[in-house]
Amino acid sequence: MALLGAIEGGGTKFVVAVCDEDMKIVDRQSIPTEDGQKTMDAVIAYFDQYEDIKAIGIAMFGPIDINPESRTYGRVLDTPKRGWSGYDVLGRMKAWRDLPYFWTTDVNGAAWAEYKTGAIEPDHSLVYLTVGTGVGAGIINRGELLSGYGHPEAGHLMMQKHPKDTYKGHCPFHQDRCLEGLAAGPAMAERWGKTAKDLSDDDIAWEIEADYLAQAAVDFTVTLRPDKIIFGGGVPHREILLPLVRKAFSEKFSNYLATPDLDDYIVPVSTGDNAGILGCFYLAQSKLEKIS
Amino acid sequence: MALLGAIEGGGTKFVVAVCDEDMKIVDRQSIPTEDGQKTMDAVIAYFDQYEDIKAIGIAMFGPIDINPESRTYGRVLDTPKRGWSGYDVLGRMKAWRDLPYFWTTDVNGAAWAEYKTGAIEPDHSLVYLTVGTGVGAGIINRGELLSGYGHPEAGHLMMQKHPKDTYKGHCPFHQDRCLEGLAAGPAMAERWGKTAKDLSDDDIAWEIEADYLAQAAVDFTVTLRPDKIIFGGGVPHREILLPLVRKAFSEKFSNYLATPDLDDYIVPVSTGDNAGILGCFYLAQSKLEKIS
Ligand SMILES: Nc1ncnc2c1ncn2[C@@H]1O[C@H](COP(=O)(O)OP(=O)(O)O)[C@@H](O)[C@H]1O
Ligand SMILES: Nc1ncnc2c1ncn2[C@@H]1O[C@H](COP(=O)(O)OP(=O)(O)O)[C@@H](O)[C@H]1O
Ligand SMILES: [Zn+2]
Ligand SMILES: [Zn+2]
Repeated sequence: MALLGAIEGGGTKFVVAVCDEDMKIVDRQSIPTEDGQKTMDAVIAYFDQYEDIKAIGIAMFGPIDINPESRTYGRVLDTPKRGWSGYDVLGRMKAWRDLPYFWTTDVNGAAWAEYKTGAIEPDHSLVYLTVGTGVGAGIINRGELLSGYGHPEAGHLMMQKHPKDTYKGHCPFHQDRCLEGLAAGPAMAERWGKTAKDLSDDDIAWEIEADYLAQAAVDFTVTLRPDKIIFGGGVPHREILLPLVRKAFSEKFSNYLATPDLDDYIVPVSTGDNAGILGCFYLAQSKLEKIS
Repeated sequence: MALLGAIEGGGTKFVVAVCDEDMKIVDRQSIPTEDGQKTMDAVIAYFDQYEDIKAIGIAMFGPIDINPESRTYGRVLDTPKRGWSGYDVLGRMKAWRDLPYFWTTDVNGAAWAEYKTGAIEPDHSLVYLTVGTGVGAGIINRGELLSGYGHPEAGHLMMQKHPKDTYKGHCPFHQDRCLEGLAAGPAMAERWGKTAKDLSDDDIAWEIEADYLAQAAVDFTVTLRPDKIIFGGGVPHREILLPLVRKAFSEKFSNYLATPDLDDYIVPVSTGDNAGILGCFYLAQSKLEKIS
């Protein structure tokens, strides 16, 4: 039986899985993330069980080098994560078996899953923004993952500070000047003295959080003109959040340009907890399609 | 002799021109911009002189509808410019002669000229940002003009206000919250009581202007990862400006991601005053290539 493989590489765990030709999951396993060498040993031991793998999609925590022209293509870039800086993930996999691999970021994987499961029409554009421990974006422009000199790191969009926000910011690079520094889970936790999950619905925290996410939505709108902006990650699990983002977006944007109806434009992720794995399978599939 | 045509539609004048197969300008003419009907009468009278036009590139002041799936494709959208809202520019040209037309914005035309004259490698990415009476961007992503639900209007990126700036802003939609509202020529003129052109090099105005342009450069960098950000329009004629933008970019960005060397990354336009017309010719040419 022909199989596709998935490697969803996260900061706390790696999920590996195989599916059949109809994208039905045959098996999946979770591996705690250790250093590069040990983690990839376990990943390879997992896939060793399967002879007939046709292609593997790898969606990896960033920053990674996805520029095929670069000397360090396929590697993890500088990261505070112990035992990962410079680790050659793609090289390791190719040395194991010379298969087609689709190599991209975790957010690109999730964006691709949303795209392939019908969030937008084929060849249209979307932004997938995850708001959790970090903030990151996967961008699909006219049916292709957008990248240039490297992959987007749109968690670091410059922000206008909310007038009621006195927090010093959490980004080691941009402090309180960027989206991640102001709106990621750890920023909320440090600012309010409790986790995002524990803040009550009527806390002013949500108005401020929505303000920043709405600014990002405006920036995406004026730059990319996407058909949808999809919010994933832990923080948007809070049901009151996206309505507040739509309201703030509407106030900030002042209807300057045509967008789809906001209820269809600023939306939660629909592929849910399987997004990562599913994205990898679809990536593996598109790699195969491109080759043949 | 086979010719290509160019229509550079600006707010104060339209420039029309024809070139030969080697992109050498055969003739050009400037037409003062009146309402849609009158201006296009003059445009058509101009091209009536030439029998053998193979294709025309049209680079038009925005907002315009460039979404081929839209009912109003080819028209000017709502604009304060008298006699232009809803005017069907492309329809008028097609009714005149059924040629291949490349229909896009003025900034896209200029971006395309930069791309085709070698600002970046083929299939790479650039942002062309014009800072004049308005602020607008043309974006080339992997060798294609980027558009989605419509064309970019990246002059309206959300900004963090400079701490020394108390100006109320100039954007009718976003006041002091967006780039155009804070950094366009008219914003500078109103804020400082004299035009950008008349401000001395050591005026604090330039530090503040550079701050906003650097924020935009950071936003483009984290979203699009372009190979170059090119500044055009009247305000960057000021030679001290781009060095200040590079400095502010460097401080704000804190080397968070790899970029090309800043002297090659944040650069002035190189095609100069011919950019608009040249862009139209290249657009006409790519339309022909796509067809054949
Ligand atoms: N229902 C909820 N409401 C608000 N915040 C939540 C909710 N559930 C989880 N979170 C927050 O989401 C963050 C974790 O996001 P998640 O995407 O799961 O993490 P990671 O980025 O590490 O994968 C934490 O800051 C947590 O407080
Ligand atoms: N050398 C200069 N230094 C600073 N500003 C300049 C200079 N030359 C022109 N400008 C400014 O550029 C603006 C006009 O930009 P331009 O791109 O020519 O206009 P438009 O957008 O209408 O085509 C005006 O605000 C003018 O003050
Ligand atoms: Zn940051
Ligand atoms: Zn604006």
